[in-house]
Amino acid sequence: MRRTRFDHAPCPIARTSDLIGDGWTPLILREACSGVRRFEDFQSRLEIPRASLATRLDRLVDDGLLRREPYQDSPPRDEYRLTRKGAEFYPVLAAMWRWGSDWLFDPEGGDALPLELVDAESGREVRPLVVDERTGDPIDVRQVRVRLRR
Amino acid sequence: MRRTRFDHAPCPIARTSDLIGDGWTPLILREACSGVRRFEDFQSRLEIPRASLATRLDRLVDDGLLRREPYQDSPPRDEYRLTRKGAEFYPVLAAMWRWGSDWLFDPEGGDALPLELVDAESGREVRPLVVDERTGDPIDVRQVRVRLRR
Repeated sequence: MRRTRFDHAPCPIARTSDLIGDGWTPLILREACSGVRRFEDFQSRLEIPRASLATRLDRLVDDGLLRREPYQDSPPRDEYRLTRKGAEFYPVLAAMWRWGSDWLFDPEGGDALPLELVDAESGREVRPLVVDERTGDPIDVRQVRVRLRR
Repeated sequence: MRRTRFDHAPCPIARTSDLIGDGWTPLILREACSGVRRFEDFQSRLEIPRASLATRLDRLVDDGLLRREPYQDSPPRDEYRLTRKGAEFYPVLAAMWRWGSDWLFDPEGGDALPLELVDAESGREVRPLVVDERTGDPIDVRQVRVRLRR
């Protein structure tokens, strides 16, 4: 059964979730964001079934987050590179990283987060925070409303 | 077939995507974040099949993003309220909002974003941006690495 689609919904959250409404897709993007480009590398790093990976890579190419680029002639092989649209998805993953770090690990229960995000140059820890671009204030659900644009 | 689970992965993105790896879940959270509490209201606003809604609400309760609260005795009825864990998921939705706004609408092609996020008090537009909490710099995929925490 084909799932309900939201790719033409009026809400950007709905359209985005249509795209990532799948456990694997954010992980494929995570790998792409850390430099993975080849089918075999996605496959071995994620231990994803090949058919599942192929479907999701095709979708990400169709949706313009990845593009195919030939890297070998015989046999012909493509790699998958992030487009600007795909690279700019990274902040969404970073916001997921922060929330997951805060709420889905349990250091006292022996389930401490074993990883950290760091700045590539300084090596200092990076802690993603979602703010209002204009004010710099953290986004707070109690402070925000959705309305029809005038 | 049960899908591959990531809820014990070392990566916070993986754990979070296990939770939202489903088109409906972010939308249910979006509605909860805008004040929806009752099954019937989620159902009518999202036009989601009742069984799908029930499954996802149960999961969100089990995972601690929503809690059940009785609001009526006969017949007994519960409503679903955001916990702090659920409310703090809102920035992830806000980051999705921003990316979706930037990349999934096409004003020139007659598909302009009809909605805006605004500050509840000032009424000014809110533009979510994911920054590094320490520096205030926007998160950029080229500047961030993942490493094992020491």
